[in-house]
Amino acid sequence: HFTKGNSIPQDQPSLMHSPPLSPQLLNSLIPEENTRCQHGLYFQDGERRVDYVLTYHIKKPSSSRSNRHSYCFTDNAFTRTLRRGTARLGRPPPPQPRGDLEVAPHDHSMDYHEDDKRFRREEFEGNLTDMGLELEKDEDTKTPGVGFVKIHAPWHVLCREAEFMKLKMPTKKVYEVKQSSGVGAKISTLVSKATEPLHPNVEENRVHNVKHLSYAFSREKQHLLLGNGVYTAAYPLHDVSRNLSMHSCLLYEEWASYSVFYKYQPIGLVRKYFGEKIGLYFAWLGLYTQMLIPASLVGVIVFLYGCATVDDNIPSMEICHPKNNITMCPLCDKACSYWKLMEACGTARASHLFDNPATVFFSIFMALWAAMFMEHWKRRQMRLNYEWDLTGFEEEEVSDHPRAEYEFRVMQKSLKKEHKTQKVPVHCSWLFSQPLDVAGLVFHIIQLLLISFIGVTFAIVFGVILYRISTNAALHLSNNPTTRSNVRLTVKTTAAIINLVVILILDEVYGAVARWLTVLEVPKTDKSFEERLIFKTFILKFVNAFTPIIYIAFFRGRLVGRPGSYLYVFESYRMEECAHGGCLMELCIQLSITMLGKQLIQNNLFEIGIPKLKKLIRYIKSKRRSFQEEEREKKLQRYETDHFLEPFAGLTPEYMEMIIQFGFVTLFVASFPLAPLFALLNNIIEIRLDAKKFVAELRRPVAARAKDIGIWYNLLRGVAKVAVIINAFVISFTSDFIPRLVYQYMYSPDGSMHGFVDHTLSYFNVSDFQHGKEPMEPLHLGYPVDMCRYKDYREPPWSNTPYVISKEFWAVLAARLAFVIVFQNVVMLMSDIVDWLIPDIPKDISLQIHKEKILMVELFMKEEQGKRQFIDSMTPGGGKENSNKHAPIARSRSIPHTHSHTHANNF
Amino acid sequence: HFTKGNSIPQDQPSLMHSPPLSPQLLNSLIPEENTRCQHGLYFQDGERRVDYVLTYHIKKPSSSRSNRHSYCFTDNAFTRTLRRGTARLGRPPPPQPRGDLEVAPHDHSMDYHEDDKRFRREEFEGNLTDMGLELEKDEDTKTPGVGFVKIHAPWHVLCREAEFMKLKMPTKKVYEVKQSSGVGAKISTLVSKATEPLHPNVEENRVHNVKHLSYAFSREKQHLLLGNGVYTAAYPLHDVSRNLSMHSCLLYEEWASYSVFYKYQPIGLVRKYFGEKIGLYFAWLGLYTQMLIPASLVGVIVFLYGCATVDDNIPSMEICHPKNNITMCPLCDKACSYWKLMEACGTARASHLFDNPATVFFSIFMALWAAMFMEHWKRRQMRLNYEWDLTGFEEEEVSDHPRAEYEFRVMQKSLKKEHKTQKVPVHCSWLFSQPLDVAGLVFHIIQLLLISFIGVTFAIVFGVILYRISTNAALHLSNNPTTRSNVRLTVKTTAAIINLVVILILDEVYGAVARWLTVLEVPKTDKSFEERLIFKTFILKFVNAFTPIIYIAFFRGRLVGRPGSYLYVFESYRMEECAHGGCLMELCIQLSITMLGKQLIQNNLFEIGIPKLKKLIRYIKSKRRSFQEEEREKKLQRYETDHFLEPFAGLTPEYMEMIIQFGFVTLFVASFPLAPLFALLNNIIEIRLDAKKFVAELRRPVAARAKDIGIWYNLLRGVAKVAVIINAFVISFTSDFIPRLVYQYMYSPDGSMHGFVDHTLSYFNVSDFQHGKEPMEPLHLGYPVDMCRYKDYREPPWSNTPYVISKEFWAVLAARLAFVIVFQNVVMLMSDIVDWLIPDIPKDISLQIHKEKILMVELFMKEEQGKRQFIDSMTPGGGKENSNKHAPIARSRSIPHTHSHTHANNF
Repeated sequence: HFTKGNSIPQDQPSLMHSPPLSPQLLNSLIPEENTRCQHGLYFQDGERRVDYVLTYHIKKPSSSRSNRHSYCFTDNAFTRTLRRGTARLGRPPPPQPRGDLEVAPHDHSMDYHEDDKRFRREEFEGNLTDMGLELEKDEDTKTPGVGFVKIHAPWHVLCREAEFMKLKMPTKKVYEVKQSSGVGAKISTLVSKATEPLHPNVEENRVHNVKHLSYAFSREKQHLLLGNGVYTAAYPLHDVSRNLSMHSCLLYEEWASYSVFYKYQPIGLVRKYFGEKIGLYFAWLGLYTQMLIPASLVGVIVFLYGCATVDDNIPSMEICHPKNNITMCPLCDKACSYWKLMEACGTARASHLFDNPATVFFSIFMALWAAMFMEHWKRRQMRLNYEWDLTGFEEEEVSDHPRAEYEFRVMQKSLKKEHKTQKVPVHCSWLFSQPLDVAGLVFHIIQLLLISFIGVTFAIVFGVILYRISTNAALHLSNNPTTRSNVRLTVKTTAAIINLVVILILDEVYGAVARWLTVLEVPKTDKSFEERLIFKTFILKFVNAFTPIIYIAFFRGRLVGRPGSYLYVFESYRMEECAHGGCLMELCIQLSITMLGKQLIQNNLFEIGIPKLKKLIRYIKSKRRSFQEEEREKKLQRYETDHFLEPFAGLTPEYMEMIIQFGFVTLFVASFPLAPLFALLNNIIEIRLDAKKFVAELRRPVAARAKDIGIWYNLLRGVAKVAVIINAFVISFTSDFIPRLVYQYMYSPDGSMHGFVDHTLSYFNVSDFQHGKEPMEPLHLGYPVDMCRYKDYREPPWSNTPYVISKEFWAVLAARLAFVIVFQNVVMLMSDIVDWLIPDIPKDISLQIHKEKILMVELFMKEEQGKRQFIDSMTPGGGKENSNKHAPIARSRSIPHTHSHTHANNF
Repeated sequence: HFTKGNSIPQDQPSLMHSPPLSPQLLNSLIPEENTRCQHGLYFQDGERRVDYVLTYHIKKPSSSRSNRHSYCFTDNAFTRTLRRGTARLGRPPPPQPRGDLEVAPHDHSMDYHEDDKRFRREEFEGNLTDMGLELEKDEDTKTPGVGFVKIHAPWHVLCREAEFMKLKMPTKKVYEVKQSSGVGAKISTLVSKATEPLHPNVEENRVHNVKHLSYAFSREKQHLLLGNGVYTAAYPLHDVSRNLSMHSCLLYEEWASYSVFYKYQPIGLVRKYFGEKIGLYFAWLGLYTQMLIPASLVGVIVFLYGCATVDDNIPSMEICHPKNNITMCPLCDKACSYWKLMEACGTARASHLFDNPATVFFSIFMALWAAMFMEHWKRRQMRLNYEWDLTGFEEEEVSDHPRAEYEFRVMQKSLKKEHKTQKVPVHCSWLFSQPLDVAGLVFHIIQLLLISFIGVTFAIVFGVILYRISTNAALHLSNNPTTRSNVRLTVKTTAAIINLVVILILDEVYGAVARWLTVLEVPKTDKSFEERLIFKTFILKFVNAFTPIIYIAFFRGRLVGRPGSYLYVFESYRMEECAHGGCLMELCIQLSITMLGKQLIQNNLFEIGIPKLKKLIRYIKSKRRSFQEEEREKKLQRYETDHFLEPFAGLTPEYMEMIIQFGFVTLFVASFPLAPLFALLNNIIEIRLDAKKFVAELRRPVAARAKDIGIWYNLLRGVAKVAVIINAFVISFTSDFIPRLVYQYMYSPDGSMHGFVDHTLSYFNVSDFQHGKEPMEPLHLGYPVDMCRYKDYREPPWSNTPYVISKEFWAVLAARLAFVIVFQNVVMLMSDIVDWLIPDIPKDISLQIHKEKILMVELFMKEEQGKRQFIDSMTPGGGKENSNKHAPIARSRSIPHTHSHTHANNF
């Protein structure tokens, strides 16, 4: 008694006394069925739409059927039954066909006989039919060896599931969204006019002052239809390609195209086509990119300020001035000789670009920027929740269900127990909440493994450092100056490349490692699996990306000793030192190489190249099997062409890429103000690249609901927090900002920076060189040297305690530490204030939510009055009896899906 | 067609096919009506219960009636209409009768004539009757001059409002709460057996494994019935006193009694009687007190450790040892003389009690304790939300409504505008969302006022300091040693008392100031009014309580100069110095005086004394009016006796008291490990004191729903955050912990603490005294002094730069600062980890919520199946027609209030 297809279901009980429905509105409720009988988009009857496809391997047909229906739990939502049912047959669960589980279930999938698989499929499909779904099998396709099961979910099934999911749906009630009057309104009109070319050419983005009140249930719910069973793939279909479906077409033109890079994304469309989860990702990416614009602008200004003031910078002037002909001590024992400070002129001038007061301002700015970004995202998320009618929706339903692997493990355990007690009770209902005994042990092992993998990163970084040190040492044995400079260049270049390559390789390795570790843990639910996986991947990749950078920022050039008693590791390898301009310059170079290298190679090359390659391989594979069928290929059904696309592997890699980039943008921004600009340029491409990938390169992902971006938000917050303290340390320890300040206010005779360079250089008496450590070429500079200088705060040779750390050192150290405390606490306080001042819910949204509540109450109140009048007009006894009897029926079915208002919007 | 009183309403449509209701369950739904016709608890008919009482002054009766029904907004929830309606009559709104608004509307209340008041009352009461409420007037009471309006809310009104509030109610579905098996269960059984005497003797706290599934609406909703109008008071009645009502009686015996101080509170009962908001307060207070137990235990252990190790403490041994007869420099110019270090022996030994490595551990412990407390509270709150069926309930409804004062202000503004344009349109619907132009200006003024009041605190603290300094100066002019020691004692005592008195007085003043400032701001909603008020009060009271303490901890004894060139303020007042043991001892004394004084005087004396006094005054006042009516007084109706009770002034003072105490417990815990113990002792009394007050001293507060403790949670978090940094500074700057460490690891010849005292003392050559600054009695000690010592890190007289700050100073400073950074970040990280490791929702609760969802789906699924079978069995056309027609009716009325299960629980 439910009509299907594109006729309007008229026998549904309606809450409102409804005039005929406007077709536009219906479109947003029923899956679009006005384009009829597409190639493979519909069942053979051309009426019922294919909502979901399952594929499997065909080998030899057989027909024995087993009837082991051992379900002891009447779970009516069929998907739940399915997902559980298969796991409870007393056997290991079948492998999950989803793309993000490629590592785990390999060992099980070989356990099945063809027959057994077939039984399972039949049983599974029987269940599907029981739940009200309609199936169509297609084993005789042009793709040999692959069978397809097409699934159609009829309207009543959708309604039922929608009710359980408490989906909201528009009611007939329509109200005006209030426009503020006065100057504010005029400005906003002006702004919206000015930004009109930036908006995508999509209807929904037009300003419309009308919004439907939404209340209670109903919309598509494909994503609950998560396949499980002996199938090789499970996916919904792409909305038949470019030229037919409006959605897909618009997405192509207005979203997945580089030519619209300057426009906002049509997020509403994206969400309609891919579901809320992916919609939120693109909304987040869009906001992040948008927020990068002011950041990169300020960054460029800071950089330009550095460029403009480089000639006014007294310390670098003093270094470069030929009159201050300071003789420096040799930088290593024996092999090195004295040198002139003027040689460091270039690096000193370059350092100023990144080491000036503006960078301090910029790192404070970026910390606040990060706080603003988080706040804005909260607001945007809230707005999207409101627009997508997700307010009140509580996540859980799907993701809180125990994973098949977990159930399998529990099963194994309980089977063992049964074996012991010789009883075989059916552990069914609440078994899964029992704690695993081995869990604790496994967890500890995993922690150890995680730490050991971080250790591997450290080891590799240390290896690269050793490489540099040892080649440097080798270099110093040679006497030929040209060889030296060549070798030095070679070493620096190769070391940087090795670092980058190591990072790129380890990134891939760590992705696999994190997955492996998480699979070992056997988390209970899909959600906890995902969260643990993300957390592990994040830790490993973050450590991988930032260890070399942290080494340069905070460890390199410290504890090097002093001329005459340089510190050595392993007897002959001297600790690395930075060039005279300080480590900031090297930090900056390392940062830009890592960031650009990662973005260019990993993000763009890998993301474009590898999916294309995989698609090609997949295509060639199937081609090899079916030799001369090229012509038929062209006429492939939609569900077949989609089969050749890469499966959707989750949003984790996309988010991970962005969060690492966020790290580059915030963590060391004090030393590299151009980072936001590079990130911005990358992201403008990234958005369209991802869009293209989702529309054309991947199988259409199962739409998933989500209210927020989940654990990613917490990770972003974590990165932003760490950024504050790291920037504080970079400014106070890596840059020369604090020593300059201390000199200016404590030691400078005239309050200027004149004499700063001299102040930072300690004296060394050449006669204090121990035997064997004096330079081999003492006359390298052309004159004999009595006293040389080196960069450190140490007592001069003529004091009572020569070469011990001087009072200035401690004073500067105290100032540096004080700066860290002040910076950290001030910035944290300011972030908290930003957090507190910007309300999480935009004012207009909270106002509208409030208004909607009042309207809803009003609507129901009117209805109740009408009802009471109705009762009063009837005979009291009979009317009440009747309404009592039908109450429960009407209650669960009287879902309003009726509309009297003809809405101009097509979506 | 709704039966009233204690008969069961049988004509309600029921969702379930329900067997007769069990009376126990009904008790939890309908207000208890089995004790019949209490004195004043019921209307004259003895059937209808008095749910709410309004009182007003009677003078001269008159009977003209105005019909100005100018409402243009059909708001069906009558309370909303009332609250708005009165504000929209084109006149200033009547004063709010609520106790927490005593400052604001004084100026309006005189504008009304008696007649006008009477009209308003009549109109208001007419509206109440229209909304379905039933009224009974009583002007002929034994309390002359006071008229009473008793209000009864019939069952159908309660149902309707409950539906709008989306109250949850129990369904007939009952399920077993799973008991975990195995060792865990045994332990928990043991624990619950062991703690049984700790539980209050109340049924509901018995372990019961059965819980009712709750779904959708209905319960009492008195708190929406917020009175507004020309009334002098508005309150619900106390549930007729001690001996009759079960609730009240149990509350008396098992809660509001000092004899049960060791038991848990019967929170469920408290919530049933007073509403969720007050229930949450007591739950929070209970958890806080409970959490204080481990804290005070560890605190006492730390203190005992200090006591036990005081004799092993090398620095104090060195000070006290008669052999180390170090001559110290005079502590002031001229008047003071040389002294022996041995004199400081006592304070040095006492300081060790609070300044030992254990306190460092303790302050880390307390930071984590605070984090644990916040986490536990989140969990407890979640559990209570679940038990009280508040999950899914969204606060807002009540508190988001514009306040009368705000509407009045908007009204005035729009009237002015109308006056200008000579048009008088009725601004009704969305007027209130318009921004006030003057708001910005007022806001700034208020900020300034707030800051200036903080300035007052500083000024007063500074005044007290000046008092001490000046009396000290006067003291030094006298030569008599006995006068001196007497004066010193007097000064210290009076200063401490003055400080305490100032704090106590300013506390009261600031309470009023904060209210005044908030009233000036005219916040839009009650909620924002409350939040702003709390925030301001918090800021002012916090500054008030902690300014003297912060002065002692971080400013006193710094920048005092050195012998021979002490620093002076205002020429003759020398900066204060701490005793030789360091400022920690003085900080500790100040802390304990302030904390104990505040708790004893303010909390207990004020809280017990003042309400009793007020009650007495109120009683005497009414007695004076009605001379010979003492006998009648004894037979007062319940609503009359309640009228003599103090009105409920909100929970703000209670929370505020506790949060200031939380500040004492966490902020300076490094210097006073006994603070948690004192807090614990206070709170054990406080809980019962508050309980007594709520049950017997105050009018029964209007029950209010709340999901959480609101802004208080954020304030607690803020205090806990500030505590980390303050403790870091106390340990590193106020205590001698860091200097000792630095000495031990950098300067000590043998790695022990021997020689530490000598190391901290600098040398001063007596001949370097400037003229007029040398001591008047140089031979005070009996021998001439050449070289004296003073506590500072300065160069000795024989160095090249005598008396300048030495290298040791900078090294110690750097170590102190480094400690602050390490401490702060480590503790913050650990707090974050605690935050992250402890899930916000207890596992069993999230499991049960999940389970309930499944059961609910199952229930409805079964019903739907039943329904479909029913439809199938009927003639398709007629059945559907019927169900369609009645759907909306049944939908909004089919509130399940039916139960088939006989629940053993009486509540």
